[in-house]
Amino acid sequence: DEKEEEELRQRFMAPPVSGLRELRRRRRELRSRMELLIMETQGEVCRALAALDPGATFAVDTWERKEGGGGISCVLQDGEVFEKAGVNVSVVFGLLSEEAARQMRSRGKSLKAKDGKLPFCAMGVSSVIHPKNPHVPTMHFNYRYFEIEEADGTKQWWFGGGTDLTPTYLNEEDAVHFHKTLKEACDKHDLKLYPKYKKWCDDYFYIKHRGERRGIGGIFFDDVDSPSKEEVFQFVKSCAKAVVPCYIPIVKRHCHDSFTPEQKLWQQLRRGRYVEFNLVYDRGTKFGLLTPGSRIESILMSLPLTARWEYMHTPPESSKEAEILEVLRNPKDWVH
Amino acid sequence: DEKEEEELRQRFMAPPVSGLRELRRRRRELRSRMELLIMETQGEVCRALAALDPGATFAVDTWERKEGGGGISCVLQDGEVFEKAGVNVSVVFGLLSEEAARQMRSRGKSLKAKDGKLPFCAMGVSSVIHPKNPHVPTMHFNYRYFEIEEADGTKQWWFGGGTDLTPTYLNEEDAVHFHKTLKEACDKHDLKLYPKYKKWCDDYFYIKHRGERRGIGGIFFDDVDSPSKEEVFQFVKSCAKAVVPCYIPIVKRHCHDSFTPEQKLWQQLRRGRYVEFNLVYDRGTKFGLLTPGSRIESILMSLPLTARWEYMHTPPESSKEAEILEVLRNPKDWVH
Repeated sequence: DEKEEEELRQRFMAPPVSGLRELRRRRRELRSRMELLIMETQGEVCRALAALDPGATFAVDTWERKEGGGGISCVLQDGEVFEKAGVNVSVVFGLLSEEAARQMRSRGKSLKAKDGKLPFCAMGVSSVIHPKNPHVPTMHFNYRYFEIEEADGTKQWWFGGGTDLTPTYLNEEDAVHFHKTLKEACDKHDLKLYPKYKKWCDDYFYIKHRGERRGIGGIFFDDVDSPSKEEVFQFVKSCAKAVVPCYIPIVKRHCHDSFTPEQKLWQQLRRGRYVEFNLVYDRGTKFGLLTPGSRIESILMSLPLTARWEYMHTPPESSKEAEILEVLRNPKDWVH
Repeated sequence: DEKEEEELRQRFMAPPVSGLRELRRRRRELRSRMELLIMETQGEVCRALAALDPGATFAVDTWERKEGGGGISCVLQDGEVFEKAGVNVSVVFGLLSEEAARQMRSRGKSLKAKDGKLPFCAMGVSSVIHPKNPHVPTMHFNYRYFEIEEADGTKQWWFGGGTDLTPTYLNEEDAVHFHKTLKEACDKHDLKLYPKYKKWCDDYFYIKHRGERRGIGGIFFDDVDSPSKEEVFQFVKSCAKAVVPCYIPIVKRHCHDSFTPEQKLWQQLRRGRYVEFNLVYDRGTKFGLLTPGSRIESILMSLPLTARWEYMHTPPESSKEAEILEVLRNPKDWVH
């Protein structure tokens, strides 16, 4: 038992918010299993990234939220391979107003509160990886779980998450590998999931004022509470386990590709679009910025180290820059 | 008469949206006088900036809005002195929904529409100047006029605007000069205006999630419709005429100051904050991004050429970087 505990400790980036003892004591509860999963995912992803960028190390910050809970932020900045890579875990709980609870559920279900307040628990792992080389795409993933207790003691719960890719230049082979790996993770659970969540991803990461998606997609889902807690958890676990195999091979393949200053400049302009999406549209970011007591540095960790905005920049027709724009304007199916 | 027309033509960056003949024909109407003022302000500011950056020129784009009206965007990019300087005029008209009309008025007054639609006219000049040298502050100004016709033929009208400064490093002499010049413009009309609009500026340009103002302020006002149309116009005119004298001497004083790479880096981090304010909070930007038919490139011209986000960046105590942060957290009175 102590050996098992020691093993877990070595796989995590820091002690879990709820404490390792406590998590192991109530190991049958879904909340504990999910917290162990997000901790394990954080460790796995950080180790895989660090292995590709030997000179750099992850700074690990643990923080507490005075209203309840806390988190662990791991950030690698200005490495050889990664410009900025953040992998963040948070486990927060406390009381929500009915209004805040409604905002958290994308479908806007109403929840009955006792004395206007709802006990809640929210946990998740979220990450954005911005590499230096313009031939290595940016990757984002997030897997999260919510529980809210209504006045009569009923517990509402749901999962959300997704993994998506934002290349500066289109590489079809990478796009297919990324989507195929995600599709395989989904297909183990239900063949309907990948097509549904692939489309949801294209719809969600839409920069309306530009008429462009943020990237070439992946999967995205929110507010999922069927068929059962156990089945959704198993699905989320498969997705979380797919993060390293869907992304790391792409980084390995391209991190030593040569590039021109013009290609670096195009990457910086695309980083500008990334900022636009995150600050103007992203529900998670907006929710975070408006929530009192949230940790701003962890929320804005998703922003790139550097970005650029040029007035009226339009790439020449038939260029590699125009090629990716075309795919961002009209999403493609990468696997069938 | 033709000589006068020729003179005007030379002072403007492009022919006015409503046509010079038409403006001169209805020269007594406030709409025409305001359009001439914004055109003249655009010309004045562009010429003053171009004189300081001899190698660079303003690209002038005129654009039409298919729903009615259009604009003139003047942008200088990647000059010697200015990284990005945009001065934009727009004159748009057409029909507004009651909902859109309510959103345009910050006080949210309800307006009675005929068949649910309100004829409106909106015009303004708006500008953001991002210099290269970290010792030269960023400056923003905007002066605008709205008219809405209600079902019974009553015309609601109001003015809005302001001029504000965003330095990377604090220079007290510059701050005093800037505020003093604005105060003098206000004081000619009413001694109550400067203190009121100075506070409004500090309150408006607040980046809530950072607990910081965007800059060291200036003046800001919105929805002003008293004491009379003529008097507010004269006040707005004084403010518009104050743009060049409040800013240009500061640029001249510092555009050849030497700076270190560390100072340039701090400027880039502050540019990141500028982006955060504009994309998350600025009413004009948000309104523009959500309005169908608006010209995105002109709206986002306000974003800097480059910006930077570092995780957990905190300047050392008693540094010049900490000095400006202190003033952004606790706004000061620069003139009494």
